[in-house]
Amino acid sequence: MYDLIIIGGGPAGLTAGIYAQRARLKTVLLEKQMVGGQIAVSDVIENFPGFPSISGAALMEKFEEHARGLGLEIRFADVLNIEVEGDDKVVKTSEGDLRTRAVIVATGAKPRRLGVPGEKELTGKGVSYCATCDGPFFRGRDVMVVGGGDTAVKEAAYLSKLAARVYLVHRRDKFRAEKMHQEKVEAAANIEILRSHALKEIKAENGLVQKAVVMDLKTNETKEIAVEGVFIFVGINPTTDFVDVEKDGGGFIKTNQLMETSVAGIYAAGDCRTTPLLQVVTAAGDGATAAFMAEAYIEEHK
Amino acid sequence: MYDLIIIGGGPAGLTAGIYAQRARLKTVLLEKQMVGGQIAVSDVIENFPGFPSISGAALMEKFEEHARGLGLEIRFADVLNIEVEGDDKVVKTSEGDLRTRAVIVATGAKPRRLGVPGEKELTGKGVSYCATCDGPFFRGRDVMVVGGGDTAVKEAAYLSKLAARVYLVHRRDKFRAEKMHQEKVEAAANIEILRSHALKEIKAENGLVQKAVVMDLKTNETKEIAVEGVFIFVGINPTTDFVDVEKDGGGFIKTNQLMETSVAGIYAAGDCRTTPLLQVVTAAGDGATAAFMAEAYIEEHK
Repeated sequence: MYDLIIIGGGPAGLTAGIYAQRARLKTVLLEKQMVGGQIAVSDVIENFPGFPSISGAALMEKFEEHARGLGLEIRFADVLNIEVEGDDKVVKTSEGDLRTRAVIVATGAKPRRLGVPGEKELTGKGVSYCATCDGPFFRGRDVMVVGGGDTAVKEAAYLSKLAARVYLVHRRDKFRAEKMHQEKVEAAANIEILRSHALKEIKAENGLVQKAVVMDLKTNETKEIAVEGVFIFVGINPTTDFVDVEKDGGGFIKTNQLMETSVAGIYAAGDCRTTPLLQVVTAAGDGATAAFMAEAYIEEHK
Repeated sequence: MYDLIIIGGGPAGLTAGIYAQRARLKTVLLEKQMVGGQIAVSDVIENFPGFPSISGAALMEKFEEHARGLGLEIRFADVLNIEVEGDDKVVKTSEGDLRTRAVIVATGAKPRRLGVPGEKELTGKGVSYCATCDGPFFRGRDVMVVGGGDTAVKEAAYLSKLAARVYLVHRRDKFRAEKMHQEKVEAAANIEILRSHALKEIKAENGLVQKAVVMDLKTNETKEIAVEGVFIFVGINPTTDFVDVEKDGGGFIKTNQLMETSVAGIYAAGDCRTTPLLQVVTAAGDGATAAFMAEAYIEEHK
């Protein structure tokens, strides 16, 4: 019997773990794949206060060391379902059932697919959702980046340092990305920005990406651009299917300011909840609040 | 004319500054006294993720360097009032008026006085609200700590390393502090815990604290304890008098999850707003969100 089970080992989960350990809660953090979460594959983070510039992997190592140093137990397991039994919760996992008083869901979110012909079949064969992971394969080649948010624009800037030429394709005529990132891509000599354009199809030769078909949304004209890589950054889907609490239209878990979900004793923190900002610092703040509230709940139901 | 004025240079204000600079907003941060805020006088912080153990001053130096490194302008001025003029705000300060589109209030909160006889007159003469600042003066002497929250219990533990003996006086029979902190004070040989006791008066000789009068709240009996220092940690008052927005009963600014106050274009972040947790990591998260929302507001009202 645990006091608290934290699901997900990214910034929110690890910070919740730090606070839970300091509160002396009997806690386990369950991680499916890789401690650190999505941010661990990010090339460089320059807006987590106290660290002017650090790689996502290095920052998450620091979070993990901090949490483990306080004695946090981390186990690798895939959570299938959470059942509520009176005041307890039973967390069904790939490694068996775990009983707990409180749960913090900190499972983050995953990149969204565009759904165009060629995308699925060519994933890993030129189509990618992670510039840090796959960028180096395209050194000296031409690539396309699709999207208009922070991630798309940041990753276009990053890829421009490796690739010969980067086409940045965005459906709208304005970017949503931070101005600082926009300026970088506008200033880069080898980035060509295609505003009001949409990617329509990805074509291969010998099983590898060779061409991208884009449409000018103002004229409806299409053209083919020769690229060997297509990087897609068009939003994210939260990992929340396994938990039966109130969610918004995008599947993100609804919480109040105390990180309470619609089910007593189940909290959500970080990118998996409805929140304006998907940032390490906000996820970490959420994790601290969720652990603090879980502690009060556990104390009350002892 | 500024895009954004941030009031207060603690964790929330500095993080807002980092995000505002990255968003290329024309921003100034106004600080009354000392960059870093209340936390900068804290002996040691062990729950800001990524820094297993660091002094408050050192952590805040890192925040400040991070913000200044991005070009944040920091000015020393006392804010007297904020006037709303159409879409603009005029921030009246001790150094003159400043016009801006948006404001983030990140002024934090200050220690609350207990209001017992002797407290006010003897502040700085044995009565203190900051163990890190004043603890070293009481090396080898007997002191009293009043309060039952995190700060009281943490500071009692800290003072026990300097003082000969520490009396920890708390009105209730349970502490609200983190268990880890409680265990430290319970384990310390030179800390005597007086649960269900209240400090009633502080007595001086030659203008310096000599005795504290405490009452056992279960028997109503009083006794005098010889101490040369009295450290009071009984809560905090937010610094929000200068701004006319909706507040709770304690004077903390009410916000929604987006850090929006009751006035469009005025945001609040950190300890000065109604929030369950007064922590560096939650204040930093607030600051990021407030800057992000302010950016959208500024863009909309250009």
